[in-house]
Amino acid sequence: MKSEFEFIQNIKKKYSLNLIGDDCAVLPKDDKTDMVITADMLVEDIDFRLEWTTPEFLGQKALAVSLSDIAAMGAEPKWAMLSIAVPEDSWNGDFVDRFYIGWHKLAREFEVELVGGDISRAPDKLVIDSIVTGEVAKGRAILRSGARAGDALFVSGCLGGAAAGLRILERGIVERTNLLVERQLRPFPRLSLSKDLNMNSIVSSMIDISDGLSSDLMHICIASQVGARIDLLPIDEELGQYFSSDESFQFALNGGEDFELLFTSRPEKISALENLPAVCIGEITPNVGIIELIHNGKTEILQPKGYRHF
Amino acid sequence: MKSEFEFIQNIKKKYSLNLIGDDCAVLPKDDKTDMVITADMLVEDIDFRLEWTTPEFLGQKALAVSLSDIAAMGAEPKWAMLSIAVPEDSWNGDFVDRFYIGWHKLAREFEVELVGGDISRAPDKLVIDSIVTGEVAKGRAILRSGARAGDALFVSGCLGGAAAGLRILERGIVERTNLLVERQLRPFPRLSLSKDLNMNSIVSSMIDISDGLSSDLMHICIASQVGARIDLLPIDEELGQYFSSDESFQFALNGGEDFELLFTSRPEKISALENLPAVCIGEITPNVGIIELIHNGKTEILQPKGYRHF
Repeated sequence: MKSEFEFIQNIKKKYSLNLIGDDCAVLPKDDKTDMVITADMLVEDIDFRLEWTTPEFLGQKALAVSLSDIAAMGAEPKWAMLSIAVPEDSWNGDFVDRFYIGWHKLAREFEVELVGGDISRAPDKLVIDSIVTGEVAKGRAILRSGARAGDALFVSGCLGGAAAGLRILERGIVERTNLLVERQLRPFPRLSLSKDLNMNSIVSSMIDISDGLSSDLMHICIASQVGARIDLLPIDEELGQYFSSDESFQFALNGGEDFELLFTSRPEKISALENLPAVCIGEITPNVGIIELIHNGKTEILQPKGYRHF
Repeated sequence: MKSEFEFIQNIKKKYSLNLIGDDCAVLPKDDKTDMVITADMLVEDIDFRLEWTTPEFLGQKALAVSLSDIAAMGAEPKWAMLSIAVPEDSWNGDFVDRFYIGWHKLAREFEVELVGGDISRAPDKLVIDSIVTGEVAKGRAILRSGARAGDALFVSGCLGGAAAGLRILERGIVERTNLLVERQLRPFPRLSLSKDLNMNSIVSSMIDISDGLSSDLMHICIASQVGARIDLLPIDEELGQYFSSDESFQFALNGGEDFELLFTSRPEKISALENLPAVCIGEITPNVGIIELIHNGKTEILQPKGYRHF
């Protein structure tokens, strides 16, 4: 079966859609500024389960995933739209009000203004489409395609937490104060780091980790026509309490939705990263499309196993 | 039960969302240009039925409804995004390819470029969110709020066709070449008229007829703090073949999805409309929130009965 990535590649080619393919589209705004725009769809029982989350957390997450795309471009968020299809029972209760309370809590923090969207009835499952626009200095949006062999590879934090949190929820343990569950239900966009990175022109390419490190790194490799070597995998230390070291390793490597930033930096720029929350995990190599992983003293070639809808 | 209109009014107030409430949000772009943006969600078995339409028609309609919002602002469309949640069986067939063929057919006609969106799996029902941006000369977007007592009231064509087409489909007659069924399945955005109207500064307020004349006229009345009198109802003449004159009258007055433009013009500007496809149907009055209908020599006060999701 074709994956959604293959499908997007196909329609890009077929219809010459040159602005598609990064975390956001970059569109000209004025002489000094580019606009970026992103849309993220969250579907009940595919992307979330109502019994695991709260309406407020879901509202926050709907915005957070789009803000993370804005962060991945080195941009600052500005305006947002929300389209929601709501089943009648959710409409009749307090679900929608509480969803907007959660959404606005995060929106206020980043001064994002809701300017539109749509509300429809849904036959049974809730669907949310979150649209956010942002701004970035002209020509300064950070793309996936700027990595070069020799660049150092960084992530903005520890990995595996969100996927581990999902596994805990799947086991029937709905403890929303559990730190891993919280990483799954309440991702936090790395906009502050992104701002620092772009202000100092430290970064040559960037993506947010939504599908999983292995998949998202492959997106950078393909877009930049390079390869990569991972020397170090920063695993969320909470995982040790619940999972074996093998399981934890897999969550950190292939688990999605951590919404950390994955980025590359030219060697001469690395010193600027000293006081920033980012860990060097490896290097960009000239082996196009090949990701090597150094693990327990051995080198293996990685097969991307991140999240696919199809 | 609260309607979606009431809900939107509530969150506008609660969160001071001043840019919400027209067919599009109007956002500053550069010194000379404003950007407009709209999102429209189409949900399977609520807004369309797969057995009545074709994937191509559905793709076209998804874009057309948003283009109609752009037309209602007097703007020209520019970029678009598409978010779709697709059930696995539609994904495995040729549905999605054919949907994009239909979408692009209309997009080419109006030089709209697809720049992003999202694709997700759906548990069983297809959901589409169509996002379109447009541009308009600074300060020249046509709002719902510009009507004044004494303005003449116009529509861009005959009404009732789309609602009548839906009724024919509901009766089990799936004839996609039937002119009324075609109006339901393949709406055409009035962008060309909109361009002429705005170029000549003819229009004081505008909306597209998506919910139905009675509802959409009420949106203008509330936003402009005026009332209106309808003297003439231009009913699609095809309706006479299938429906009684009473039924036809109701379709034209309350039926949604004709996607014609409903607009007002100052009396001194009306002469500029002579060669344009628009019919004068009445006048704006000072009776805030009251719509009078002159029908069979009698005046009645209208109760808006257009489409509501809730």
